[in-house]
Amino acid sequence: MIHALSREIPVNIRFFNGRVIAFYGDSNIIDGGEVIVTGDTIAYCGDGKDSRYNEVCQGLSFDREMDLKGNVIMPGFKNCHTHSGMAFLRSMADDMKLEDWLNKQIFPREARLTADDIYYSTKLSVMEYLTGGVTGICDMYLMPEAIARATEETGMRCVQCGCVNNFSQSAGLLKEWYENYNKENSLTSFRLGIHAEYTCSEELLKEISTLVHEKKAPLYLHMSETEFEVQGCRERHQGLSPVEYLDSLGLFDYGALFFHGVHVTDKDLEIMKKRSIAVVTNPASNAKLASGIAPISRYLKEGVKLGIGTDGPASNNCLDMFREMFLTTALGKLKENDAAAVDAMEVLRIACSEGAEVIGLPECDSLAEGKKADLIVLDLFAPNMQPLNNIMKNIVYSGSKANVKLTMIDGVIRYEDGAFNIGEDPERIYSEVSRTVERINKEIEV
Amino acid sequence: MIHALSREIPVNIRFFNGRVIAFYGDSNIIDGGEVIVTGDTIAYCGDGKDSRYNEVCQGLSFDREMDLKGNVIMPGFKNCHTHSGMAFLRSMADDMKLEDWLNKQIFPREARLTADDIYYSTKLSVMEYLTGGVTGICDMYLMPEAIARATEETGMRCVQCGCVNNFSQSAGLLKEWYENYNKENSLTSFRLGIHAEYTCSEELLKEISTLVHEKKAPLYLHMSETEFEVQGCRERHQGLSPVEYLDSLGLFDYGALFFHGVHVTDKDLEIMKKRSIAVVTNPASNAKLASGIAPISRYLKEGVKLGIGTDGPASNNCLDMFREMFLTTALGKLKENDAAAVDAMEVLRIACSEGAEVIGLPECDSLAEGKKADLIVLDLFAPNMQPLNNIMKNIVYSGSKANVKLTMIDGVIRYEDGAFNIGEDPERIYSEVSRTVERINKEIEV
Repeated sequence: MIHALSREIPVNIRFFNGRVIAFYGDSNIIDGGEVIVTGDTIAYCGDGKDSRYNEVCQGLSFDREMDLKGNVIMPGFKNCHTHSGMAFLRSMADDMKLEDWLNKQIFPREARLTADDIYYSTKLSVMEYLTGGVTGICDMYLMPEAIARATEETGMRCVQCGCVNNFSQSAGLLKEWYENYNKENSLTSFRLGIHAEYTCSEELLKEISTLVHEKKAPLYLHMSETEFEVQGCRERHQGLSPVEYLDSLGLFDYGALFFHGVHVTDKDLEIMKKRSIAVVTNPASNAKLASGIAPISRYLKEGVKLGIGTDGPASNNCLDMFREMFLTTALGKLKENDAAAVDAMEVLRIACSEGAEVIGLPECDSLAEGKKADLIVLDLFAPNMQPLNNIMKNIVYSGSKANVKLTMIDGVIRYEDGAFNIGEDPERIYSEVSRTVERINKEIEV
Repeated sequence: MIHALSREIPVNIRFFNGRVIAFYGDSNIIDGGEVIVTGDTIAYCGDGKDSRYNEVCQGLSFDREMDLKGNVIMPGFKNCHTHSGMAFLRSMADDMKLEDWLNKQIFPREARLTADDIYYSTKLSVMEYLTGGVTGICDMYLMPEAIARATEETGMRCVQCGCVNNFSQSAGLLKEWYENYNKENSLTSFRLGIHAEYTCSEELLKEISTLVHEKKAPLYLHMSETEFEVQGCRERHQGLSPVEYLDSLGLFDYGALFFHGVHVTDKDLEIMKKRSIAVVTNPASNAKLASGIAPISRYLKEGVKLGIGTDGPASNNCLDMFREMFLTTALGKLKENDAAAVDAMEVLRIACSEGAEVIGLPECDSLAEGKKADLIVLDLFAPNMQPLNNIMKNIVYSGSKANVKLTMIDGVIRYEDGAFNIGEDPERIYSEVSRTVERINKEIEV
């Protein structure tokens, strides 16, 4: 691998002879396409036959020129909802009722987490993102410092959001993090966020509302994931749905991002449109936990902006946007009883481009001059990607992380042909996460 | 790769230091396990500490000894329902209503297929199976000679079944194939099969029933895939469901294998139990085509034997048993509204072991002495498979074809670390399938 080893040593890279899916301009694939990266930025994307290409190339020396041999180059996937630090819990407890799972298995273990535990579990998740072509994540978990350390050291672009609730974090901490973690030119950014309606007292929600108005910022939160949650809110709050109730407190006055959004009413949808609220769908998690199927077809028709996420590794259990893309369209079809619902081309656009917009990374939504160099190369010369009848549908319906040849974030190649460039030995990360598991299991037994 | 290049040159291979999932005896994983293959057969599977191990090893010289370094060795997946020859149609037409898809896109193209077209498309599908750890398939398509040529040359174990209907194949051909293709020690076997109730006249079905009774053999067929199909049968046949109607013709007197089995009634289930009928579920295809979710939980409770299949590459569009395993449990949970339904451990057992039984390959259902050497090695030292809280659940919930290190069929390593041993250059197969696409598209335009 010849590449920039870190963000401190920027390099110039030319990709040529690719099939470019730019998500910019028309939706056609550019055959024989060229992408030029200088430092952390895309300097050129096109067919290499225009005058702009010559201008950009003039005087530029390339540290690496990579023949894509007809493979796809495109913006990376945006995993718009995850809890990376839960990787230590993968396959610890599955095939259980939701409340047993949470109360008996998850919460007791999470209560014993140290910052280092979260740091290594997050690094393990980053490795998985890189193998699957994910170049940006929206992460919600405990101890933002540990998450930021892990994602910045491994080079992952990470939008964190708060997870304030009655039991951890607070409006004060949220404000502090929001002010500290939104620096320019950082891989880390931070959004106002709460866990969910059902884990926050009204007093706490009012403090958050004050902060939302002070910062004029959207609120990120789990919303209407289960019927049980919606029903509980109606019982607690004079028949209001969680969307209605939180809106009545002014929490969505500057917009919001809903994670899940499985069970919404017509009235909820009116509020969502009025407040320009976007939704991140997590189909694998919603299926595995028997929560339901989100109304994707309806969201598309109503113009609700969408992103796609994996949810955390304890509830999914894998962090694979190929699987999520397939499920977004396939479960959308099942829900509508219509094989023509939720077109795969829309799903690919959401996974790569619109997802960037909804988590607040518009600079990473396409391969266009001036955008951040967050991109991937997919191998088309593998049996699951042949023949090339429709490359974009091949990616959604048949693609696999086995097809990811290269993942670049912020101009740095972090993964290529199975090798990682993340500043640490994978074996070390595996063994540290195993140590977390062993220690916590022992503590719980005692 | 040091391996048997073909079945004609059998070799002795020792796998050691593995985690063995044998699907034989108790369900525990054997740590530090050993598997010895001589020719096409498993000569030993265990912890290497018993007297049988010494007996087997005595006087045996190994052509290769492979340190598994703690990775999993287990029986390969059985893809129990597929149409391999449809690979040329992948992503040709998706996101369409079922009848438009069939009548406007699929049927006109299939009418133009030659034996060579089917031969190369089948080879392309075999490549995909090998990358995904599939060691046996149950294939239903046109021109059995072409399918057998492709699967035998590439080394895939293939149970073919007839696809008799009003428009192609016949009872006479079915009888001929059944008599010719069930030779001992062949990778190919053949079962009686029809396309479905809705494509066969009663006259034809009676001819098939005669053949079923002559051969005393079970019938393989598409069954109750869509509500439309069930409703149509009731209208055509005095209110009988397809299960009731075909049973009344004696077609299930020697058992049957149902592909899909999505829409069945209590009465159907009684017949299925009485006739010992097994079901192959195809959850990705059933979701993508909006056909529904099969009642897996009910089947498990009623003791109906199960297999898992991908269906063909035109309707899925990928041939990935990892995706199907995840969907079998996750959609089963959604259907029952119960996160504890359809345990992943059951699903893994079905995918590897019970699937072999239902398609008639009991000699390939486990890693035990005397069984056929159809096995795979899965890499656990990849981010999606760590930590090792529960290896079998990791495989079902988080596994990916990217974790398949090695696929062996009949004692021959056909795929290892990304390289194929199938007697032909992958590029040739890709280009031949592309030629099929181009030619047929041109013929249709004219």
